[in-house]
Amino acid sequence: MKVMVGGTFDPLHDGHKRLITRSFELAGKKGSVTIGLTTDQFARRKCHPVKEYSARKASLENYIRESGFSAHYRVEPLNDRYGSAVSENFDALVVSEETLPIAREINILRHEKGKRKVDIHQITCVLADDDRWISSTRIYRGEIDEHGRLLHRD
Amino acid sequence: MKVMVGGTFDPLHDGHKRLITRSFELAGKKGSVTIGLTTDQFARRKCHPVKEYSARKASLENYIRESGFSAHYRVEPLNDRYGSAVSENFDALVVSEETLPIAREINILRHEKGKRKVDIHQITCVLADDDRWISSTRIYRGEIDEHGRLLHRD
Repeated sequence: MKVMVGGTFDPLHDGHKRLITRSFELAGKKGSVTIGLTTDQFARRKCHPVKEYSARKASLENYIRESGFSAHYRVEPLNDRYGSAVSENFDALVVSEETLPIAREINILRHEKGKRKVDIHQITCVLADDDRWISSTRIYRGEIDEHGRLLHRD
Repeated sequence: MKVMVGGTFDPLHDGHKRLITRSFELAGKKGSVTIGLTTDQFARRKCHPVKEYSARKASLENYIRESGFSAHYRVEPLNDRYGSAVSENFDALVVSEETLPIAREINILRHEKGKRKVDIHQITCVLADDDRWISSTRIYRGEIDEHGRLLHRD
């Protein structure tokens, strides 16, 4: 299966890892995964500082290599919320609870363009120790670490 | 992975087959699939006649047998829109474009009950030859057959 997934992935936390892992599982050994990675310009809209594209890409590639996934993959720059997902031929989009609305918008746009709609696989967000979502914002705020462990600062 | 899927499945058309096939693929060889099959009483709300539970169950089981899926499965009666999906421990719910809202309701109800939310896998509906969804209603109306072929009546 040909799968697409997207994000800023900074820092690469357990929620992101779940998203990437599921994308490769869904693609299967002979499938492919296209990872849309937000460009530095597009990632600037975030409410926290974001590492450079090259560093975020290296971090993603390192995680994929360590995990030993079999499917082919490539990382491509994402300049807006949709990227090539509105025009490319693929089978399924993997999203989180937060980004499910974007997946639905992508299918509406595909339909308007006369493109086949794609399947949507929505994973649940990974919870931190306090049962709230792990998010990059919370990590940047120093509330939790990449694994959702609470950081009690003095 | 432990997967749940539900429906009336009458007649078992290509859209249903896609839903069932994807459920087994997602479950994997060592996983399990629970199929909620609407009871005759609950299926009565449909705008067309529906075959008896036992006949619909036999048709599902026949398709699963013919397809040679490896995952364990069981068919259980579905008396309302949610069934055991609001209370059981499982990993992912497989739905169609039509039933995505029910999956989201199930996650809200699970959260309210203090149960872990589940992943949602939404397949696109299979299109008939006229690029509209294959549906049981259209088949009962005599517009299309189970494979979405247009039936031109004299």
